[in-house]
Amino acid sequence: MNDFCLKNYIRERKQMVDRQIDVLLPQPEGPSGKVVEAMRYSLSAGGKRVRPILMMAACEAVGGDFKSILPAACAMECVHTYSLIHDDLPAMDNDDLRRGKPTCHKVFGEAVAILAGDGLLTYAFELMTHPDLLSRVDSATVNQAVSIFARAAGVHGMVGGQTADVLFEGRPIDADILSYIHRHKTGALIRASVEMGALLGNGDSGEVERLSRYGTALGLAFQVIDDLLDVVGDEDKIGKPVGSDERNMKATYPALFGLEETRKRALELKDEALGNLAEFGPEAEPLRAIAIYVVERDR
Amino acid sequence: MNDFCLKNYIRERKQMVDRQIDVLLPQPEGPSGKVVEAMRYSLSAGGKRVRPILMMAACEAVGGDFKSILPAACAMECVHTYSLIHDDLPAMDNDDLRRGKPTCHKVFGEAVAILAGDGLLTYAFELMTHPDLLSRVDSATVNQAVSIFARAAGVHGMVGGQTADVLFEGRPIDADILSYIHRHKTGALIRASVEMGALLGNGDSGEVERLSRYGTALGLAFQVIDDLLDVVGDEDKIGKPVGSDERNMKATYPALFGLEETRKRALELKDEALGNLAEFGPEAEPLRAIAIYVVERDR
Repeated sequence: MNDFCLKNYIRERKQMVDRQIDVLLPQPEGPSGKVVEAMRYSLSAGGKRVRPILMMAACEAVGGDFKSILPAACAMECVHTYSLIHDDLPAMDNDDLRRGKPTCHKVFGEAVAILAGDGLLTYAFELMTHPDLLSRVDSATVNQAVSIFARAAGVHGMVGGQTADVLFEGRPIDADILSYIHRHKTGALIRASVEMGALLGNGDSGEVERLSRYGTALGLAFQVIDDLLDVVGDEDKIGKPVGSDERNMKATYPALFGLEETRKRALELKDEALGNLAEFGPEAEPLRAIAIYVVERDR
Repeated sequence: MNDFCLKNYIRERKQMVDRQIDVLLPQPEGPSGKVVEAMRYSLSAGGKRVRPILMMAACEAVGGDFKSILPAACAMECVHTYSLIHDDLPAMDNDDLRRGKPTCHKVFGEAVAILAGDGLLTYAFELMTHPDLLSRVDSATVNQAVSIFARAAGVHGMVGGQTADVLFEGRPIDADILSYIHRHKTGALIRASVEMGALLGNGDSGEVERLSRYGTALGLAFQVIDDLLDVVGDEDKIGKPVGSDERNMKATYPALFGLEETRKRALELKDEALGNLAEFGPEAEPLRAIAIYVVERDR
């Protein structure tokens, strides 16, 4: 019998992250207040806080105190949010709406939106050296976490994935390129969230390694299901028109492998994620529930 | 008698930074190789390496080994270069040329240029945790340097200054706004370069504090002279058309205070910079020579 309620857990953690983001972000003031306003606008535009919640859950899974790593969790959300702002720009995906709200550049103009993204990315590293974090986590461990974070967000991670996505848009792609985009564009940051949580929670190297593998599988599962929902999902639930990826000639898993193979792959990834949690106790229950939810969700 | 030759010093240091940048930057490979190519293109587009050279000079001034902080010096150049790439974008200053070469977005397109900027900014923090740096500088000191770096590059520093510059372009501005833009847009990163060098070189808090004040004065002097050269400089030497700031309605020091007052201010700032070096020995000679050069240069 498992009485863990993921819905309540996620609601509580999300509220905590929302509150911390509000506390930790600068206030809009002075001649450049507009850019902080834009940063706050996009940060509060309805994000589900998946990455910070994963980071805190991984911290707990290794017996750490998730509250002590809240600045790092918020830093992760800053990087995720900056990536959305830049992805939405006219030169990139040119999106006017994100989660039903006007995108950053529609509200603040392109120049301020570019700068808001830059500001969020930079602020993430300011948060990684926030006194609240440094007072509770060993300095060398913080260095390691910064390194993992920067690598996952940069050209060997998210920026690399986004570049490939942009360069191959509208061109026929094979499974290798699709896998590259999945692993880098969204996968790298999800894996890093889990890995950083384990590290900052003082997990040993075996624990960090296993949770990193959990994160890799989860990140892929997340993307495979996202692609699937774009084909078979309910528009009201997923918040964007069904079939938009196909119309935008986006490379997706179902387009390449079909629906059945895609579903099968998602289940395999879920098993792989759960398998890496086998040696963890009840502290890893949230991570287990998240892996199951990610694959079974309908939005 | 002073036989220190700044010209040779700068040439040697610049070569060292150029070489290190080439060694430390990733190679363009795989599906996202284009973004690394764009990063390398802009990094090698003729930058003078002022900030890395300042960082290494400050490290030496406190008796540190400047070679041990080369990854941090290159990180600073990455952040400076990313800021140029994003500043040149059509939504910002819309420049086709930078130092006589086509700007990043003219060569690689807007999407890749945005991503190259993002990639460089992120890579800077990967370099701040490079094994070569971590093996030679204490972990807590590296965290402090990351914190100073992120703050100086972000909304309380360069991004804030750039935001104000964009928002006030073409509007009448007063001395307060001009000073805000100067102190933030270019001043913050120059000050941080010196401060980080002193810190990573293991300077004591008094030394770091005095060099930080030197950096503040130097950064302002640099900008004041830049403004001045735009009015009275030689086009061939400064590499852009004389008077372009005025035509672009850019806020400048001479426009607000006149030429004579601007020259006077530059000399005051030089004296302020040198005054903060008074207690340092011959190890600070390069920093002294740089302060004098910055104010007396004609390009």
